[in-house]
Amino acid sequence: MTPIDPVDLTARLVRCPSVTPEEGGALVLLQDLLEGAGFTCTRVDRNGTSNLFARWGDKGAAKTFGFNGHTDVVPIGNPEDWTFDPFGAEIDGGFLYGRGSTDMKSGVAAFAAAAVDFVRGTPPDGSIILTITGDEEGDATDGTVALLDWMKDQGEQMDVCLVGEPTSPDFMGQMMKIGRRGSLSAWFTVQGQQGHSAYPHRALNPLPAMARLMDRLASHTLDEGTEHFDASTLAIVTIDTGNPATNVIPAQTRACVNIRFNDAHSGATLSDWLRDEAAKVDKAFGTTTSLKIKISGESFLTPPGALSDLVGAAVQAETNQVPELSTTGGTSDARFVKDHCPVVEFGLVGKRMHAVDERVEVAQVHQLKAIYTRILRSYFA
Amino acid sequence: MTPIDPVDLTARLVRCPSVTPEEGGALVLLQDLLEGAGFTCTRVDRNGTSNLFARWGDKGAAKTFGFNGHTDVVPIGNPEDWTFDPFGAEIDGGFLYGRGSTDMKSGVAAFAAAAVDFVRGTPPDGSIILTITGDEEGDATDGTVALLDWMKDQGEQMDVCLVGEPTSPDFMGQMMKIGRRGSLSAWFTVQGQQGHSAYPHRALNPLPAMARLMDRLASHTLDEGTEHFDASTLAIVTIDTGNPATNVIPAQTRACVNIRFNDAHSGATLSDWLRDEAAKVDKAFGTTTSLKIKISGESFLTPPGALSDLVGAAVQAETNQVPELSTTGGTSDARFVKDHCPVVEFGLVGKRMHAVDERVEVAQVHQLKAIYTRILRSYFA
Ligand SMILES: [Zn+2]
Ligand SMILES: [Zn+2]
Repeated sequence: MTPIDPVDLTARLVRCPSVTPEEGGALVLLQDLLEGAGFTCTRVDRNGTSNLFARWGDKGAAKTFGFNGHTDVVPIGNPEDWTFDPFGAEIDGGFLYGRGSTDMKSGVAAFAAAAVDFVRGTPPDGSIILTITGDEEGDATDGTVALLDWMKDQGEQMDVCLVGEPTSPDFMGQMMKIGRRGSLSAWFTVQGQQGHSAYPHRALNPLPAMARLMDRLASHTLDEGTEHFDASTLAIVTIDTGNPATNVIPAQTRACVNIRFNDAHSGATLSDWLRDEAAKVDKAFGTTTSLKIKISGESFLTPPGALSDLVGAAVQAETNQVPELSTTGGTSDARFVKDHCPVVEFGLVGKRMHAVDERVEVAQVHQLKAIYTRILRSYFA
Repeated sequence: MTPIDPVDLTARLVRCPSVTPEEGGALVLLQDLLEGAGFTCTRVDRNGTSNLFARWGDKGAAKTFGFNGHTDVVPIGNPEDWTFDPFGAEIDGGFLYGRGSTDMKSGVAAFAAAAVDFVRGTPPDGSIILTITGDEEGDATDGTVALLDWMKDQGEQMDVCLVGEPTSPDFMGQMMKIGRRGSLSAWFTVQGQQGHSAYPHRALNPLPAMARLMDRLASHTLDEGTEHFDASTLAIVTIDTGNPATNVIPAQTRACVNIRFNDAHSGATLSDWLRDEAAKVDKAFGTTTSLKIKISGESFLTPPGALSDLVGAAVQAETNQVPELSTTGGTSDARFVKDHCPVVEFGLVGKRMHAVDERVEVAQVHQLKAIYTRILRSYFA
């Protein structure tokens, strides 16, 4: 049987206009392919989000390897900024162009192609599960989470999972991810009392309190990094008052900070710290600060070990690079998978993600399929 | 001849809808009255602003007493919030209601009535000049300034001047003003470099620099007050960024501060200080801060002496109060008059200025005319 060409499969997926939350035909296409190779497929749609579960082999097999990925893509922006049709999948100069070509239709194509060829070649003693979501770029509330909820209900279990997101900053094989920092956003509203600029003692200006609070938060060293993590960081993302009148002291001002935190912290300990800092400033200035906190994800780590060794060896064999075990970057659906089983992430070079003229090097898609194939072969050896 | 009733004159002025920059009939009404009493009147209009110059007696007389005031008023806001027609001048419970009843049609009525009765009674050995503008509440660029420019051209000179603005916070006779603090506004733009919240080291967030700068400015004690002035004050009036995305570090943020300063400072020394502080923060954070400064007025003082004694004695005789010699409050047209001659301000209780249901106590308008009359009598005695 002819092996699946992962570049051709990427091209067919890019031509599905699956901007979140549109399915766009991408999951239907994959389901056809996988069912043709003997996978049992189930659409696990929830609240308008489309998701695909696919298993080859028996439920409850001795060993189950999982892949996770997404077919939804971010919007294209202004179409006139693109050199090639963002849904055209045109190939030029060794690159395939299109929205999702890097993030991450090529990753999904590579693991689907690797899995199909693998089970057709030497059927493993075990099972392979693919979880593919149509909502990773959006709120992600009904995507991988819905798949994992459904799997729990059905008694479906992966022993390990590889998320196929782009992971290397600059070159193929450079980096894999064994965890991620957590992310928390906090919105502050400092309340004072309005007044006239000429009589500040009759008003209570919330802005000096806000300036002090933000200076304290931004100046604080959260940590110096931990064994597997970079230092935690805090970014003030906005301060807003909206007072156009130079002779008026405003009653209120607002700000938002975003914290990316490692395993020295948790959403709860950071929330306590933020509330303490606000209380200190309120005490000093007489203001009243209210605080809304959203924890997008806690930090997590799959400690270096069997899974990272398996993936690392496959990457080295195909690319001659020893991938760095990293926990840098934003969030990914690995933050949900980590509650189900050990998870690592390995994929393409991510630098053109979400950009205009997003493109993927054709040779790297073939290389990625080879790496995924080698991982399956080693896992089931 | 029947004395002029200052309450009746106030009522007739309130019925002129002279919201800045509308003349509304107010200056025409005053010109009629003053010409009838032998004043020489000239309309000194400039760029759409109406102003009235009136002199009784000879130009270049041995002694010239000046009054300054304005007939324009601030907008009424929502008419439905008013108990009485804001241009109706209705009298109820001993108060005359209407926009401008306190600020400052009653003040203009009181000094016009006092001046007319005085010259009709015992014509003084000297002259009286009234400068009345239709733009004190607006930009004030073509109001009292236009009158003073014109007077300079014409060789018209006041030896002293009394501005009839409301001056007392709570009760009649409580306070006169012998100067005012200066006012300066500064707009800061801190420029950094945009980036992703997860990678703050690849961006240059302008917000920590802004927070530090604003904290430094707001924490600094400019002075502890001087002999005749309260302490200088700085109010941060707004900080704005307008970044809605928690995962984005913004490129730029803006802020505005307003400083009310006494004679320990000048617009120039404060501008230097602000630029120094911005430069220090830029050096520490690597940001680039640009600064736009507007000096609305320098501080000024008419030192206690002959003029304040004259006014103080008249106030005490009529009210039994020794008025405090103050330099508090916002700005007034005295900041322009002070370049022409010694100037003090004395008028009504100001607490209902610019408010809904602005009103003046009828008895206090009579009292104010009596004080102004006594001032004229003493000055020319
Ligand atoms: Zn992705
Ligand atoms: Zn006024």
